[in-house]
Amino acid sequence: ECETHNGEGVDSPALDALLMDLTKVNNSRDRANRLFQDNWEKKPILIQRQNPDFYKGLFSTAEFDQILRNDDVQYGVNLDVTSYTNGKRETHNPPGRALPYTVWDFYESGCSLRMLNPQAFSSTVWQVLSILQEKFGSMAGANVSEDEVLPLVSSPNFNQNEIGQPIMDVVLEAGDLLYFPRGFIHQGDCLPNAHSLHITISSFQRNSWGDLLLKLMPASLEIAMEEDVEFRKGLPLDYLQFMGVQNSEKDDPRRSKFIAHVEGLMKNLVSYAPVDAAVDQKARDFLHDCLPPMLSAEEKASSVYGAPARWGDGKALDVTVQLKGQTQIRLVRAGAARLCGDGDTVSLFYTTENSRVYHKEEPKSTEMKTEHIDAMEFLIHSYPKFVSVASLPCETMEAKMSLAELLFEKGVIRTAEPLTAE
Amino acid sequence: ECETHNGEGVDSPALDALLMDLTKVNNSRDRANRLFQDNWEKKPILIQRQNPDFYKGLFSTAEFDQILRNDDVQYGVNLDVTSYTNGKRETHNPPGRALPYTVWDFYESGCSLRMLNPQAFSSTVWQVLSILQEKFGSMAGANVSEDEVLPLVSSPNFNQNEIGQPIMDVVLEAGDLLYFPRGFIHQGDCLPNAHSLHITISSFQRNSWGDLLLKLMPASLEIAMEEDVEFRKGLPLDYLQFMGVQNSEKDDPRRSKFIAHVEGLMKNLVSYAPVDAAVDQKARDFLHDCLPPMLSAEEKASSVYGAPARWGDGKALDVTVQLKGQTQIRLVRAGAARLCGDGDTVSLFYTTENSRVYHKEEPKSTEMKTEHIDAMEFLIHSYPKFVSVASLPCETMEAKMSLAELLFEKGVIRTAEPLTAE
Amino acid sequence: ECETHNGEGVDSPALDALLMDLTKVNNSRDRANRLFQDNWEKKPILIQRQNPDFYKGLFSTAEFDQILRNDDVQYGVNLDVTSYTNGKRETHNPPGRALPYTVWDFYESGCSLRMLNPQAFSSTVWQVLSILQEKFGSMAGANVSEDEVLPLVSSPNFNQNEIGQPIMDVVLEAGDLLYFPRGFIHQGDCLPNAHSLHITISSFQRNSWGDLLLKLMPASLEIAMEEDVEFRKGLPLDYLQFMGVQNSEKDDPRRSKFIAHVEGLMKNLVSYAPVDAAVDQKARDFLHDCLPPMLSAEEKASSVYGAPARWGDGKALDVTVQLKGQTQIRLVRAGAARLCGDGDTVSLFYTTENSRVYHKEEPKSTEMKTEHIDAMEFLIHSYPKFVSVASLPCETMEAKMSLAELLFEKGVIRTAEPLTAE
Amino acid sequence: ECETHNGEGVDSPALDALLMDLTKVNNSRDRANRLFQDNWEKKPILIQRQNPDFYKGLFSTAEFDQILRNDDVQYGVNLDVTSYTNGKRETHNPPGRALPYTVWDFYESGCSLRMLNPQAFSSTVWQVLSILQEKFGSMAGANVSEDEVLPLVSSPNFNQNEIGQPIMDVVLEAGDLLYFPRGFIHQGDCLPNAHSLHITISSFQRNSWGDLLLKLMPASLEIAMEEDVEFRKGLPLDYLQFMGVQNSEKDDPRRSKFIAHVEGLMKNLVSYAPVDAAVDQKARDFLHDCLPPMLSAEEKASSVYGAPARWGDGKALDVTVQLKGQTQIRLVRAGAARLCGDGDTVSLFYTTENSRVYHKEEPKSTEMKTEHIDAMEFLIHSYPKFVSVASLPCETMEAKMSLAELLFEKGVIRTAEPLTAE
Repeated sequence: ECETHNGEGVDSPALDALLMDLTKVNNSRDRANRLFQDNWEKKPILIQRQNPDFYKGLFSTAEFDQILRNDDVQYGVNLDVTSYTNGKRETHNPPGRALPYTVWDFYESGCSLRMLNPQAFSSTVWQVLSILQEKFGSMAGANVSEDEVLPLVSSPNFNQNEIGQPIMDVVLEAGDLLYFPRGFIHQGDCLPNAHSLHITISSFQRNSWGDLLLKLMPASLEIAMEEDVEFRKGLPLDYLQFMGVQNSEKDDPRRSKFIAHVEGLMKNLVSYAPVDAAVDQKARDFLHDCLPPMLSAEEKASSVYGAPARWGDGKALDVTVQLKGQTQIRLVRAGAARLCGDGDTVSLFYTTENSRVYHKEEPKSTEMKTEHIDAMEFLIHSYPKFVSVASLPCETMEAKMSLAELLFEKGVIRTAEPLTAE
Repeated sequence: ECETHNGEGVDSPALDALLMDLTKVNNSRDRANRLFQDNWEKKPILIQRQNPDFYKGLFSTAEFDQILRNDDVQYGVNLDVTSYTNGKRETHNPPGRALPYTVWDFYESGCSLRMLNPQAFSSTVWQVLSILQEKFGSMAGANVSEDEVLPLVSSPNFNQNEIGQPIMDVVLEAGDLLYFPRGFIHQGDCLPNAHSLHITISSFQRNSWGDLLLKLMPASLEIAMEEDVEFRKGLPLDYLQFMGVQNSEKDDPRRSKFIAHVEGLMKNLVSYAPVDAAVDQKARDFLHDCLPPMLSAEEKASSVYGAPARWGDGKALDVTVQLKGQTQIRLVRAGAARLCGDGDTVSLFYTTENSRVYHKEEPKSTEMKTEHIDAMEFLIHSYPKFVSVASLPCETMEAKMSLAELLFEKGVIRTAEPLTAE
Repeated sequence: ECETHNGEGVDSPALDALLMDLTKVNNSRDRANRLFQDNWEKKPILIQRQNPDFYKGLFSTAEFDQILRNDDVQYGVNLDVTSYTNGKRETHNPPGRALPYTVWDFYESGCSLRMLNPQAFSSTVWQVLSILQEKFGSMAGANVSEDEVLPLVSSPNFNQNEIGQPIMDVVLEAGDLLYFPRGFIHQGDCLPNAHSLHITISSFQRNSWGDLLLKLMPASLEIAMEEDVEFRKGLPLDYLQFMGVQNSEKDDPRRSKFIAHVEGLMKNLVSYAPVDAAVDQKARDFLHDCLPPMLSAEEKASSVYGAPARWGDGKALDVTVQLKGQTQIRLVRAGAARLCGDGDTVSLFYTTENSRVYHKEEPKSTEMKTEHIDAMEFLIHSYPKFVSVASLPCETMEAKMSLAELLFEKGVIRTAEPLTAE
Repeated sequence: ECETHNGEGVDSPALDALLMDLTKVNNSRDRANRLFQDNWEKKPILIQRQNPDFYKGLFSTAEFDQILRNDDVQYGVNLDVTSYTNGKRETHNPPGRALPYTVWDFYESGCSLRMLNPQAFSSTVWQVLSILQEKFGSMAGANVSEDEVLPLVSSPNFNQNEIGQPIMDVVLEAGDLLYFPRGFIHQGDCLPNAHSLHITISSFQRNSWGDLLLKLMPASLEIAMEEDVEFRKGLPLDYLQFMGVQNSEKDDPRRSKFIAHVEGLMKNLVSYAPVDAAVDQKARDFLHDCLPPMLSAEEKASSVYGAPARWGDGKALDVTVQLKGQTQIRLVRAGAARLCGDGDTVSLFYTTENSRVYHKEEPKSTEMKTEHIDAMEFLIHSYPKFVSVASLPCETMEAKMSLAELLFEKGVIRTAEPLTAE
């Protein structure tokens, strides 16, 4: 719902480089590039480029000024104004909309400005994050800081003693990139009289094996209790007499027997673990977290947004220009839609109707008819190849058409060529 | 937050005419124009113009098509799709965004389209409604209907028998205007094979003397109970024995005495009635209901939205260009702000930070410092004359500046000339 | 649900005297007794009797000890333990049930004990309060304080300066009674080394003419707006321009006209005031606030609680012993039930299923069939006379029986003689 | 809060027999009694005694009649009245209290009466259930049915076809006992013209190994994620591309590697399983579900309920009679209190302040001071032996006294002899 301000999409070669930087990690066949291979989730990486224009086009203070002018940026919601006095942080957000008149006045008075969800306002940031989220299979977030002065204080969660000596202490110049793994304590200061604009991108939160097990374990147990009588058998009538903290130092032979039985059951859980279903649970959450795909002009033209149906000459025109059997289609993006098991049914979850504001929309999904499931899988696995509607593996032409129509209307697929009236 | 689509503001002479039509009622000195004088709140008025272009520019199906293309119009929230079969209404809203591709398909299948808050998308409708609300001192709403077929059924709240014979039965042509008072039962049909686009504007809801008394009576009683011991005296110990429905047919002399005493107290309430405070309660509600003022390019330039503070050449520029003592200021609109008593304090309520979506924002107000109240009244009553900041009746120059600054930042006032760096 | 501890009912002659004291006020024909006449709602009354046994039987510390032993008295809910150190009050309620073992230990350490709803535990207090509420037509509450030491501090809501000089300063001895009107500031101290047990009874809260108007005014206005077009007419279109706090000092002739019109409408409200319906609203609240009637053994025997239906000899016995046409009936208490208008219907509200714990039960009512309403009124107005079921003014014997049956099952009526099998 | 109606406790020899029946299962050393050993959780057991008086004293229709008379039995809450017409069940609960007058009328008209929580009204049922819950380490519930006619319909959850042929079809006579394991579908009919009174006791719900794992698995995972970096490592960046339902039929080598890794982690969870803490979670729930212990007259006398502190002769008496170092103490019941880990602290959970109405009270617990923990364990493990306060393993006499005092006040311990003044 918000317009973008610096052209359509990202075309700076340097930005391509950034994206390549950030995503090389993902290409396990690239033996030449061990940089991320060796550091990912392990060590920080600092890339110093001596090229202040390297990230030109990603985000600029001038773009920030334009956003304030054109969009409804709200203090406290989209922008935080803070200052540090004697090592204490203070917030100065007035109520209401942030306009350049007040924002630059705060800035000149020495306040820091932090934009909380630049992806909702800047299409470049939107695009960068949506590419990242696709590459990493995990939500990506961002904030942008604008400072003249930055405090010499660290995160309030730790005091200096607890942290110990820093392992890295560098001056970042314009064009530099610093990666560090989840969980690294860090602190930014601003050199005297320097203007600093930096963008912080975070991703790969709550994406560990343990997070997957949080979904998998309850599901495994539910299945085990249904299918395996051992899990339904009653506990020993007297188990409270020898188990529990108050009995933990008792030397009772029943204790080890009880614990061994529990451990046996825990190991048996493995046989009931619905791994794919648990992955689907994570996938569903992820598709809800995602930014919607940012479409290029060409993509818009070939999707529902560019369909020729319109009002003109006092009547509805080109309403009949619709998909045909020979129309070539594919997903708009690899990750824009996904089939997930959802209890007894299979549903298609998709990102195309998400908002650029985090979780502003409910999760979007539609239950799949049985006759559509194979065709949907076929379409997903065909990406990035276009396939004709007629080639979808449904029994009837009607089913093929209705699936394609459904997906087209939700913006999940695009056509190879824009739909036109002959 | 939404862009407008048909130019800046309204410049069709016909639109001026409409506004004149609608607001003549308000000009009690215009003796020549008795039309609304005689009909307002009494009888319908039909103006037939034989000029289909009369309202050109107010809203068109082409603009509607553009809105679908550019804005996030949601089925069920902003657009209702309905059909009538055998006199029964059915709603067909799918989930998600309404795009031309699906909307015109519904239309071609014979469905009616009703846009529920066109003022959020069309700046012309926004402007018309915001002028109306200012003239009528009461919220104005609108919806737009697009039909090929309109049902021969009336509101489901009444059946044909209860209603009786219609008092008016006319064919409205493009350019015509039909006014009818609050409470008139009406029903629209569509002539066969005619495309119909009409806009319904409603105003003056909950704006009766009774609605004012709903605010005034509890306030009067609260004051009376505090100030007048007669209201605090106990009821007769035995009143339950002769009053109440079960005793209403009793011929007990205590009944008439009791009723007379109640009536005496009710009449005494008049002495405690805080009429201005009750009006303020209604005013507060009204200012929350209001659309924000729609500013012209010139108004924007002379308000906080056009202040020159900006980012340029790697630094914040023109931050020091601010209001001065000699700066000429006035409210942006007569009704954009109002001083209201709010318990023990006086607050300024204002419409400039309202949303074009009804009640999407909380009521906006700021408590007035005592030193600012007189100056604020002065400013309100000076409208539409500009006055200098220095002329505000505050004791100190500092107070004058801080009030002007506050109002300017909230967009409540504009300057006579755009602020510029000398 | 809780047993009483000092016999069935109240039989001390002194208690009779107390009740006479407290209720004389109600007897306006008793010319000889001007005491309450002159003081009620005006001045305190002190009755010093030099008879420490005068209120013997009302409540004793021994009864309190028994209640702790037999009932589920909870600290913080039913009993507050407090101490005063340097004029500061502290609360010492532990969690859980209050038993003599801990309660008397607190007492010996100098704490004050305050029982919050003695009526739920003591049947004497229950009876006294239920008689008071009947006489005063207003809820009656109580608490009992047990002190060895009482603080020299007053209510924390006032400081000594605000209060000024006391108008009365007396030592209350056992057997004395002190009445003071609602709103009198008071403070109790305990003489050194004296054990003090006093009961505080409050009534007549929220029972003023103003409280009645709080129900009556909104109802009057609703009716006026429905029936009188003057209340539905629109406010002047420009009223916001001359009314309200910001215009209150304006010398505008429209102001006085506007205010006069408002005052005229306020006075006209009197014609629409549904006084009996408003009294019924208060009555409904009162019947919900009421304690249930405390029945004597004889009353229990003649009501549903004493009906002979029972299990015996392996079968249900005397199930057929029910009301007959010639059975003499009356309400169990004057105030136990009341017919109240309830929107479009008439309902019977009753106290017999209330709890001794304030508002623990929902308000109890049953909608009256049209055929029963006259008979119900007849029954209410006949009290305390017994009337036969057959004499109820219903059209059919069946209707008479079904009404009597309904009332008997809810404990609202009793019979002149216990029901017995012939 | 409710009085018991058939004497103090249970003294019928037949009842002893019932309890023995029901609890023999628990005595694994009783080699002679294989009956329950072989059937528990496996097969129904029918004990036919040809002795209608065998359970005399457990519950009788006469006791039910007494309960209706003396206690606040509410229709719908404590008593359900139902009838079956043409195989369809109807409920007839009127609002309000159930009195013999209406209850026996329903019964005579052919309705079934079901008392939903007889343990709240009958001390015998209370005692039986509280013994069962102690023996089974699991909540026990009951209901009592009173029928003249019982329907020939089964649970509405199944239809006759799904169930198949019954495995047992017997006529139960007074004095008989039928046990069947959790999950057995059953159906009761009433022989024509026979009065049937039966009590249904259920226990051992949600008490399986699986139910323990429901507590254990999340706790294990939380610990593993804190302590083992393998659980915190990120998922493969591309896992969504080969895992999940939509990829489940893919023949991708990454799938088996992924699944094997998950299974490895699941098995490693065993090393982090806090079995005792999980048992404590179940124990906490169980202690909240429990009925409070029913004390005999002798037990009351030796506990806080019988302590001599009281009011007499105008003062608090025997307040100083308290526990001493040589006082012999023990828990009132084996299961009345339990030490459970509760996050970082250890708390004592206890049943003595529970209500006889299920979960009417919040869970009762008190955090244990470190200096009291060993002594508390000692006290629990000493049961049923009495130990002196002085023998508690605390460092100071003061600590010993304060623990004993705390437990005594909550009714958790009793003394060997009633406390008396010397």
